[in-house]
Amino acid sequence: MSGPGGRFISLEGGEGVGKSTQARALAAALRAAGREVIETREPGGSPGAEAIRKLLLEGAGDRWAAEAEALLFAAARADHVARTIRPAVARGAWVICDRFLDSSIAYQGGADGLGDEAIRALHAVGSKGLLPDRTLLLALPEAEAMAREAARDAGKSDRFGARDADYHTAVGRTFRRLAEADPARWRIVDATGPAETVTARLLDAIEDVG
Amino acid sequence: MSGPGGRFISLEGGEGVGKSTQARALAAALRAAGREVIETREPGGSPGAEAIRKLLLEGAGDRWAAEAEALLFAAARADHVARTIRPAVARGAWVICDRFLDSSIAYQGGADGLGDEAIRALHAVGSKGLLPDRTLLLALPEAEAMAREAARDAGKSDRFGARDADYHTAVGRTFRRLAEADPARWRIVDATGPAETVTARLLDAIEDVG
Repeated sequence: MSGPGGRFISLEGGEGVGKSTQARALAAALRAAGREVIETREPGGSPGAEAIRKLLLEGAGDRWAAEAEALLFAAARADHVARTIRPAVARGAWVICDRFLDSSIAYQGGADGLGDEAIRALHAVGSKGLLPDRTLLLALPEAEAMAREAARDAGKSDRFGARDADYHTAVGRTFRRLAEADPARWRIVDATGPAETVTARLLDAIEDVG
Repeated sequence: MSGPGGRFISLEGGEGVGKSTQARALAAALRAAGREVIETREPGGSPGAEAIRKLLLEGAGDRWAAEAEALLFAAARADHVARTIRPAVARGAWVICDRFLDSSIAYQGGADGLGDEAIRALHAVGSKGLLPDRTLLLALPEAEAMAREAARDAGKSDRFGARDADYHTAVGRTFRRLAEADPARWRIVDATGPAETVTARLLDAIEDVG
């Protein structure tokens, strides 16, 4: 999908794996190399999508049935793609996005049981099926991911972080299955060790994209 | 889809055709005949769907791209179906709904150009494809519908009412096409004349449903 020079990179992985920190570090490294970089994240990333984000992250855990939730994520993504991602890539920028379609497949499609195909059908209507040029899966041993999340989120987890261990295990398995099924788009990146080491691995993993 | 005694009736038609008034009158007549009746309308009809309704009806005409808008309508409908319509019909109530799926097909699918199949795909994921037992199309000659709308909405039309005449003409054509394609579900009802006359026609048009 990329225009001349523009690229779309997504970061995926479970809670507590360091996606936000690494998205920032990756954007900084690309800027230092002279690229225009847009840092964004889902749900959100455009004014309309941020309004939908509020509906998704606030309220009780059972506020939305799984189907309505999947449609809200797809609506936010459609707005984000149309208003932020496509225009940026078209003018030659690199877009670094913390979570994208694959999070919906892993959370609503996998752990919530709607199935991959339902989520892809919504994405086909909402965003004409746009896929990233590269998706980076930040992978931690499960025990370490849970310990990081517990340390970070004590008392302030949102509707998703608050779900139980089985839920998060299902999410992690779906990410690995998706990555293994499409090795041209995905790279699985070891997220253990110092943050700078992880950033260096991510930069290696996008070297052939640009 | 109906359980014992429960029925789901939708009213469709363009702006200014009298749907809200007739939904109220139809509900009153059914209650007078001893039925439990739920009056509801879209977008909205459940707490989650009402929150989505605000996003849809407020703001500038171009606030949402057509794709995001269609997904928001489908999300509101999924919540409305899961939390209001299905439980009511399951306990034997009659649900009278002012606008349902067919409005999305006529507005987002037809006039906005997404196509029927895209809207039906969203409905399959969001609401397992639930269809009304009967859909009543309130039909007016076009000139009369526009005059009624102008009289009612002077200065306070929402994002949909404010669109131009060609848009509303396309909506009306889609409704007629849908009604003609599925005569078992649809009845086209003449909406001219006194309100009580129209209500009597509507009651005739649901007589074989219950």
